[in-house]
Amino acid sequence: MTSYSVEIPPLDEARMAAASKRQDKLLKPIGSLGVLETISVRLAGIRSGEARDLSKTAVVVFAADNNIHDESISPVPQIVTLSQSENMVRGIAGISVLTRHSGSELYVVDVGIRQDSLLKEILPRKIRMGAGNIVREDAMTPEEALKALKTGDEFAELCAQKGYGLVGAGEMGICNTSSSAAIVACLTGESPRAVTGKGVGLTDEGHEFKIRCVERAIERAKPDPNDPFGVLYKVGGIDIAAMAGFYLGCAQRRLPCVVDGFIAMAAALAAQRINPSVTDYLFASHLSEEPGYAYAAKAAGFAPMFSLAMRLGEGTGCPLAFNVIQAAEKCFNEMGTFEEGNVDDSTYIDIR
Amino acid sequence: MTSYSVEIPPLDEARMAAASKRQDKLLKPIGSLGVLETISVRLAGIRSGEARDLSKTAVVVFAADNNIHDESISPVPQIVTLSQSENMVRGIAGISVLTRHSGSELYVVDVGIRQDSLLKEILPRKIRMGAGNIVREDAMTPEEALKALKTGDEFAELCAQKGYGLVGAGEMGICNTSSSAAIVACLTGESPRAVTGKGVGLTDEGHEFKIRCVERAIERAKPDPNDPFGVLYKVGGIDIAAMAGFYLGCAQRRLPCVVDGFIAMAAALAAQRINPSVTDYLFASHLSEEPGYAYAAKAAGFAPMFSLAMRLGEGTGCPLAFNVIQAAEKCFNEMGTFEEGNVDDSTYIDIR
Repeated sequence: MTSYSVEIPPLDEARMAAASKRQDKLLKPIGSLGVLETISVRLAGIRSGEARDLSKTAVVVFAADNNIHDESISPVPQIVTLSQSENMVRGIAGISVLTRHSGSELYVVDVGIRQDSLLKEILPRKIRMGAGNIVREDAMTPEEALKALKTGDEFAELCAQKGYGLVGAGEMGICNTSSSAAIVACLTGESPRAVTGKGVGLTDEGHEFKIRCVERAIERAKPDPNDPFGVLYKVGGIDIAAMAGFYLGCAQRRLPCVVDGFIAMAAALAAQRINPSVTDYLFASHLSEEPGYAYAAKAAGFAPMFSLAMRLGEGTGCPLAFNVIQAAEKCFNEMGTFEEGNVDDSTYIDIR
Repeated sequence: MTSYSVEIPPLDEARMAAASKRQDKLLKPIGSLGVLETISVRLAGIRSGEARDLSKTAVVVFAADNNIHDESISPVPQIVTLSQSENMVRGIAGISVLTRHSGSELYVVDVGIRQDSLLKEILPRKIRMGAGNIVREDAMTPEEALKALKTGDEFAELCAQKGYGLVGAGEMGICNTSSSAAIVACLTGESPRAVTGKGVGLTDEGHEFKIRCVERAIERAKPDPNDPFGVLYKVGGIDIAAMAGFYLGCAQRRLPCVVDGFIAMAAALAAQRINPSVTDYLFASHLSEEPGYAYAAKAAGFAPMFSLAMRLGEGTGCPLAFNVIQAAEKCFNEMGTFEEGNVDDSTYIDIR
């Protein structure tokens, strides 16, 4: 049986304990920097002494179509997957601007756009011309899903090789909120109605139809909730499988990685079901407006940093989160200790 | 009767409408960048065509003591207000690191530290040696409160003069969560118990005593909830009054300003009660762990951007929010339009 597994090293508990000890000596009430403190401690456990320059960052966008579009489930033409992928490398999409803002590199990978681009900046790794219409057929064969996961892993390896210290994944694929909803419903046990949103902005009628399509996909494929690989290839998407492979690959290589919005969280949840340790290496960016996000994040145990009512995807939450993670690291490295700051540490430490 | 009033120009509605129109033409589903979109629209209304370089940022920290400390309400020695203010200008406090991270200038202003510093980098504007012990006496005279508000205004003017495009305020003052709780209880009508937290980390017993002190301060002073100036001088703090003056001064000069955590939000609430239009010029950073924050923010109508479980104060949320606001502005300026991106805008616009 085709499947996918990845070995992930445990967090370095000794280094985390040492980092935590240092945090408690820094010039602030213990715990008062909140998530900035826990980020810095986790980074110590993730990197385990390996030098990783957090200022070197990248976002990898996996683009693929979803032929559930043939059901007329979305008012947006399928060609937008291609044109928006091209806009990313042309520098005018949201993720282009935000990666420029954060000084990050942007990679756009075609893992399954239904049309071909002439732009050489779109990296060609097409696995098939769009995922199958999950209402009527599986999204992929098991072999194709494996290829998608391995393509994600290939880019995790590339990021590690290139010396990025912090990365994130994004996606582009019209209708991928539908495949994400199907994945999240299967893996959390929530109803398709609960986890299916209005995407770019469906009417109530369109929303009802979308919910019904997600239900039909699950009724057709009957994926086993305990088989995340099966869920991915039966009712998922090529972009989502590649993201899951990317997350797992980052964790395997001790590379901290940011999870963007709903589609990214669906991929992270699938990755977590493949190997629960992946979670240790991931940081959730923002609470997406898509209703399925909160269910997926809760099931996977993530608490997002931002509440910005965003629902664009593309990886746009990643560059924003990079800044917070970099800030957390700097506080850890550059704040003075009680001793250096002429503050009697007993006053702060006794009152934990 | 001594009081304080400031004229605040209205937001430029025409420019906001134009900005909103442009947002709807950018390469994304309408509204999908959420708060990043509303920030950019509000910035257009705030600046009203004035050139303001958002990359030029500053945080102004107002430091003052609170002689409620004499009640033994906090386990932290009062001298920490001075030493931590010094640590800020020495570059080793949390706010020092975070302003370095964001490329912001940091100003530390002594508006009422009970001791004097020898460091010339701490700007001397001492109004009195700590606010009065509000359990037994008013925090300030009306004249002193006026002076504190005007000192805040002076620094808003300085920031405008120096060409900052985006600023924030911070504070340092042991026991200022108590004065903030008193202000928030008075201005929101919530009970002292609801809005009084454990500060740096009190025991349950210490927390009960702190609540009782806030109750006694309000019982003693009986401030009129409809007189924010009276609330500030009777049960507030010098740092908080200066912050309120700073916010009002920024709004008067069309300078966008970030509100940090609980103490900052108490000051923003007081400022809003002095002139409601100040809110248009303020951006809330993060949901503080101090329980009073959520009440104050709700009463003042703010939705914070971050959920980071922070409760350090000092203005530490400001540099993090600067990055989000700058990102919002860049998306607005640099994203392409549907036309430029070869996407039929009717597909996105029809489905609002």
